[in-house]
Amino acid sequence: EFETRYFRQRLDHFSFSGEEEFFQQRYLVGRAGAGGWAGPGGPIFFYCGNEGDIAWFAANSGLVWDAAPRFAALVVFAEHRYYGESMPFGSKDKAYNNSRSMAYLTAEQALADYAVLLTDLKRNLSSESSPVVLFGGSYGGMLAAWMRLKYPHIAVGALASSAPILQFEDIVPDTIFYDLVSNDFKRESLSCFQTIKDSWKELDEQGNGQDGLLKLSKTLHLCQTLNTTGALSDWLNSAYSYLAMVDYPMPSEFLMPLPANPIKEVCRNIDKQPEGSSILERIYAGVNIYYNYTGTVDCFDLDDDPHGMGGWDWQACTEMVMPMSSSEGLSMFPPDEFDYALYADDCVKNFGVRPRPRWISTEFGGHNISSVLEKFGSNIIFFNGLLDPWSGGGVLKNISESVVAIVAPLGAHHIDLRPATKEDPDWLVSLRESELEIISGWLSDHYRGRGGAIFQRATNKGSAAS
Amino acid sequence: EFETRYFRQRLDHFSFSGEEEFFQQRYLVGRAGAGGWAGPGGPIFFYCGNEGDIAWFAANSGLVWDAAPRFAALVVFAEHRYYGESMPFGSKDKAYNNSRSMAYLTAEQALADYAVLLTDLKRNLSSESSPVVLFGGSYGGMLAAWMRLKYPHIAVGALASSAPILQFEDIVPDTIFYDLVSNDFKRESLSCFQTIKDSWKELDEQGNGQDGLLKLSKTLHLCQTLNTTGALSDWLNSAYSYLAMVDYPMPSEFLMPLPANPIKEVCRNIDKQPEGSSILERIYAGVNIYYNYTGTVDCFDLDDDPHGMGGWDWQACTEMVMPMSSSEGLSMFPPDEFDYALYADDCVKNFGVRPRPRWISTEFGGHNISSVLEKFGSNIIFFNGLLDPWSGGGVLKNISESVVAIVAPLGAHHIDLRPATKEDPDWLVSLRESELEIISGWLSDHYRGRGGAIFQRATNKGSAAS
Repeated sequence: EFETRYFRQRLDHFSFSGEEEFFQQRYLVGRAGAGGWAGPGGPIFFYCGNEGDIAWFAANSGLVWDAAPRFAALVVFAEHRYYGESMPFGSKDKAYNNSRSMAYLTAEQALADYAVLLTDLKRNLSSESSPVVLFGGSYGGMLAAWMRLKYPHIAVGALASSAPILQFEDIVPDTIFYDLVSNDFKRESLSCFQTIKDSWKELDEQGNGQDGLLKLSKTLHLCQTLNTTGALSDWLNSAYSYLAMVDYPMPSEFLMPLPANPIKEVCRNIDKQPEGSSILERIYAGVNIYYNYTGTVDCFDLDDDPHGMGGWDWQACTEMVMPMSSSEGLSMFPPDEFDYALYADDCVKNFGVRPRPRWISTEFGGHNISSVLEKFGSNIIFFNGLLDPWSGGGVLKNISESVVAIVAPLGAHHIDLRPATKEDPDWLVSLRESELEIISGWLSDHYRGRGGAIFQRATNKGSAAS
Repeated sequence: EFETRYFRQRLDHFSFSGEEEFFQQRYLVGRAGAGGWAGPGGPIFFYCGNEGDIAWFAANSGLVWDAAPRFAALVVFAEHRYYGESMPFGSKDKAYNNSRSMAYLTAEQALADYAVLLTDLKRNLSSESSPVVLFGGSYGGMLAAWMRLKYPHIAVGALASSAPILQFEDIVPDTIFYDLVSNDFKRESLSCFQTIKDSWKELDEQGNGQDGLLKLSKTLHLCQTLNTTGALSDWLNSAYSYLAMVDYPMPSEFLMPLPANPIKEVCRNIDKQPEGSSILERIYAGVNIYYNYTGTVDCFDLDDDPHGMGGWDWQACTEMVMPMSSSEGLSMFPPDEFDYALYADDCVKNFGVRPRPRWISTEFGGHNISSVLEKFGSNIIFFNGLLDPWSGGGVLKNISESVVAIVAPLGAHHIDLRPATKEDPDWLVSLRESELEIISGWLSDHYRGRGGAIFQRATNKGSAAS
């Protein structure tokens, strides 16, 4: 469905040392389908790649592909620097070698990559007047929103799906993420929620006992024996958090192959274990749904990173400092208060860098975002699903006539972007349609200012196709 | 009238190498005058320093000081990195040592400096809710406009005075600058214009003759004998261009001490020389007004840089590529077509860097700026005086209700920012008042959204003072 191309991209857009480094940025360009691209001046749908292999996002962002023919739009998925194949210094090993080689893995540099790539692409297509619509999910959604704000001359609008642009400093309560994860479990089953809540103490106690780590490793079917219980806690924590993110009402294979409503399945497994089963046996039965739904995994490797998202840890230790605590009351996770000093020291230890926790809100804003954007900025859709723990850091209210929030009470992480399926509930079909109508309005506005010729062509094609 | 302070500023805002460099950025803070600052929550007037010593801009931007009491605003003048005292690596010599040390002299880094400084300043004053109004003239005006566009969460509006944000690529005709300079001379005296137009050939011929450079150096009263006629042409070119910029209707001392209507004086001197005077004697009599109005200069040093603006050459060789040609017909300068390849090669030779001529418009926009900003951005005043050759690259038409152009047909380079004098013509008094009324509207809007208490205080003070 697409061609893979590479663009010679500058490593550092914001300095001029005379010793320029470049790297090959991968991007995917949709092959013209039945209707094809409208041609020069026609719309460009541009997905702002996030922290992983771009082919993976392309496969999981069906909305962009599904919508393109309706607008005769060209589809471009651009890979984020330092992910997938878009590695500076020639290889992942070299790019991830040390803090000096990783220095340019930042959101600002990635946005500049997209700006330069789009500008060049339009020029090469003799299509400078093309309206560009940005898409992105999660961190990619943050990039899409920020790109519309910082580069309004390059894109006419952005669909920022599940973009937690407010998950910084004290803009939202730092307990909100884990409270939302916990709530997703509680709503399925109170006993499931309680079993998980009780498991952490159990886990610590077993871990501290005679041969405890060995026993734990066996109970949880780990490939290697644990060195600390902390690694196991993190692995379980990840499973629950990711489950909350992908708690879709249809089967999916985004992070892992999963059934519809996976939290319901996990809780069913936890709850249905025979009486007398230990808490940790129940926990194993639960996470087995997440980590081994296909049933093909013999044992679990805690350090698995199948989608190449490892660079995010660096980003979290530099600019993406999202404080997260776990509350005593609402959360099923062990109570935990975010300790910035400790966090920063770990970053220095692990990566040789000290975070700048206030930089993102200085660079992109976030405090009082409503009052800032009410008079400034236009054409952004913030989608959020309330099952998604990241919705806690999302924009959930309309800010102005053209900076709008679409909220799905039963939706999870960027469910709107997912490929359409026959199992899609009506609310999902209908909210996708709302998004496309808004985008259609942006394109109409754009073409109205230019005589409307191309837009006519585009909508005619759209009508013919629908 | 002000205190001098220093802020520990990060050299590179856009990377995280783990080896952080910092420098001391100088900024001036207005001492509270009669009315004083309104206090936490009160307005902050922030001048975006440009390519020179900040004390110089503070002395020549009286509007900011004059207007502050009316709004009980705190005044801050921030120095641009690599100018004045704000030198990375501890000294100008070290900062200007080579392309690696100069690498971070960019507009983006300077804007990030201002964003970080303002954010920190507001926090230290417990004044996060303060509305910030940005001011800037020339390159500083570009920075003010760009800052409002890129950091709308940090400032509520910008007065961008004589900001040639369109003087890039082919956005405006590349002959416009020299055509406007020439026109300023032509409108004063056609014979003066013609003498200058004829002088270049004369200069070349003399320079190529026997002992020509020595003779030229004597005729023009240079301190050192010329090596090439090119250096002399550049020096004359500078005088004419700067004269057009500062062609104010009152005496001024911005670039040089000058009488009111300096071009009129220059042309009077050129025209009034006794019959039989050579063209170059007339030229000398003319530029003597510019370079030696006080009559205290014995000889001219072509390499003088009294305001420390030398870093601009670097900026022009990296991102600030402003193509300038001289037309055959309208210009009094020798016909000259901008040759980018030659320009770039000179940059490599002189600074070891190759320019990125398309970067500024990629980063900040410029093409179709009206249609982009019509729906995006708010609260920017673009002032331009039409005598100013930089007005050719300025925004001369209203873009939206709140992105407006104020144009003074008889004004020169950021004349609105200059300190008020008794000689100010009515149109100048009145346009300054218009600017302040617009700014007052921004502040009202800001405080209306917050209950209005502080704004009341501010306007009351203003009324009491006026």
